[in-house]
Amino acid sequence: MVAAEDPESFFATAPPLRDADAVSARLRDFIARNSHPSAASGRRIVCVTSGGTTVPLEQRCVRYIDNFSSGHRGAASTEYFLKAGYAVIFVHRRGSCQPYCRFLPDDSFLKFFDVDAESKVQVAESHATMVKKAIGDYCKAMEGGSLLKLAFSTIFEYLQLLKMVATSISSVGPRGMFYLAAAVSDFYVPWDRMAKHKIQSAGGPLDMRLSQVPKMLSLLRNQWAPLAFCISFKLETDSGILVQKADMALNKYNMNIVVANLLATYKQEVVIVTEKERSTIRKINRDEDLEEQMVEILSQNHSKYICGITNGCNQSPD
Amino acid sequence: MVAAEDPESFFATAPPLRDADAVSARLRDFIARNSHPSAASGRRIVCVTSGGTTVPLEQRCVRYIDNFSSGHRGAASTEYFLKAGYAVIFVHRRGSCQPYCRFLPDDSFLKFFDVDAESKVQVAESHATMVKKAIGDYCKAMEGGSLLKLAFSTIFEYLQLLKMVATSISSVGPRGMFYLAAAVSDFYVPWDRMAKHKIQSAGGPLDMRLSQVPKMLSLLRNQWAPLAFCISFKLETDSGILVQKADMALNKYNMNIVVANLLATYKQEVVIVTEKERSTIRKINRDEDLEEQMVEILSQNHSKYICGITNGCNQSPD
Repeated sequence: MVAAEDPESFFATAPPLRDADAVSARLRDFIARNSHPSAASGRRIVCVTSGGTTVPLEQRCVRYIDNFSSGHRGAASTEYFLKAGYAVIFVHRRGSCQPYCRFLPDDSFLKFFDVDAESKVQVAESHATMVKKAIGDYCKAMEGGSLLKLAFSTIFEYLQLLKMVATSISSVGPRGMFYLAAAVSDFYVPWDRMAKHKIQSAGGPLDMRLSQVPKMLSLLRNQWAPLAFCISFKLETDSGILVQKADMALNKYNMNIVVANLLATYKQEVVIVTEKERSTIRKINRDEDLEEQMVEILSQNHSKYICGITNGCNQSPD
Repeated sequence: MVAAEDPESFFATAPPLRDADAVSARLRDFIARNSHPSAASGRRIVCVTSGGTTVPLEQRCVRYIDNFSSGHRGAASTEYFLKAGYAVIFVHRRGSCQPYCRFLPDDSFLKFFDVDAESKVQVAESHATMVKKAIGDYCKAMEGGSLLKLAFSTIFEYLQLLKMVATSISSVGPRGMFYLAAAVSDFYVPWDRMAKHKIQSAGGPLDMRLSQVPKMLSLLRNQWAPLAFCISFKLETDSGILVQKADMALNKYNMNIVVANLLATYKQEVVIVTEKERSTIRKINRDEDLEEQMVEILSQNHSKYICGITNGCNQSPD
């Protein structure tokens, strides 16, 4: 049991990432372009992780365990990080919420559009402003080369991607940030112990033993990208243990910031926990994104951190 | 353990369906409108189920077990059933593939559109024909009142919805059809035995015991809608046991047809299994939907079935 919870054996037994070489090349280009001193004079680069991870229960996967996460927080935060001048590597669950598409309900794509008398497709009048702004902002981000999207589904893909991004981002030192909003599974079935085919249901109840997913935050912190500014998230359903759990995570994994939130209120309120303080951020009006305030505060903290590392702010953070 | 696998205790302990009264009223109206003799002279009504079900592992749900299913088959079949003159009750997993939206990739909504010089949103030229057709067909189905969409996520919602639809559809006797394409979980955690809060990961490996979901096909067949024409699906990953499992399902639950398919090839090939024969349907060219052929064959079988029940075809099937 111990072996499966060890990071090295996790990576050794995980099914290898598809297109690993291509992903690695895209990452290298993205970071080179955005960290080139002559360009935006060494921009800050954030890796935003978003959405839940899945844990396959069968190698030819029909069934899996999933973690709840719409990916709304990651998508919204990506928009505000771009607005704040960051280059963003958006590591997201396939099918989760995407930047500039957050307003789009699951199944109402067709409701947004009409076909007019000349048989031209038109955006329904009620949505025109929103759709236009979204398309404009999206095109700007993509054309500017400041947004790189990388997709995962399983815990195996997620952790391999994270490692790849982290070792690449380490080249920008303290200008790198991790904003780990993905809901990562705590438990999984190691690949080499997984059923090959669909588990048959004939035999009564099913007993399963799930192993703990090895905690990769220590590796991220100590080996993959030791100078990056690290923000992790703590989601709980029980308010009684939330801040205590956030404090534990801060110390155990040596995070710079832990963002604590409750499932029931995560869209309205978060607590930003640092070594020195806890500050609660609340949504004031209905149309505002909580992520706008969050990103502002986190970006300020990141600036101070860069100053500290680079000895008294002899480099500007942007 | 036995109690949890019994349908009565399943329904007694399941969290009640939200808006059950409203859903029930929509169903009643839909069936009355579509089965009214003076209107489309007693149309056939099919309940298409689509997408996978989730099994929550916690009452305030962060984690759940999911069954793989994009819902593409259900969405495509719905389009062809509508084209064949059926009224369709589309019971689908939230977020799964929707009729007339199947062509739309997850995250490329914005790629379909441009903003032109007059700052009007335009469909990108390359997609215009497809988008126009989709919008037109969708509007037609919705305006004609022949498509009713009902959404579920969990196994608790799915089975309660299915029961509700079945007892309503029983009023049209043999003109009713069930096309059970949803990937329904075999195992679940009974609600009254489920952890209330997020399961904590501190304590090493997690041992779980899952109960079998009670088999509801017998109830559907014998009690809820005894005269309806019933088609169930069998998805396996191992070709060696596929047709044998389909045969078993046909006999055990007294289905009219079982559609057998393999995870690796389900878009290219299915086997239609009846008491008398097994016929394999294959996709011939790339742009064709396998569901077009499937629906044609199933609709013919349904017509024969109606003839048989109503004593020598003294009613026309459409």
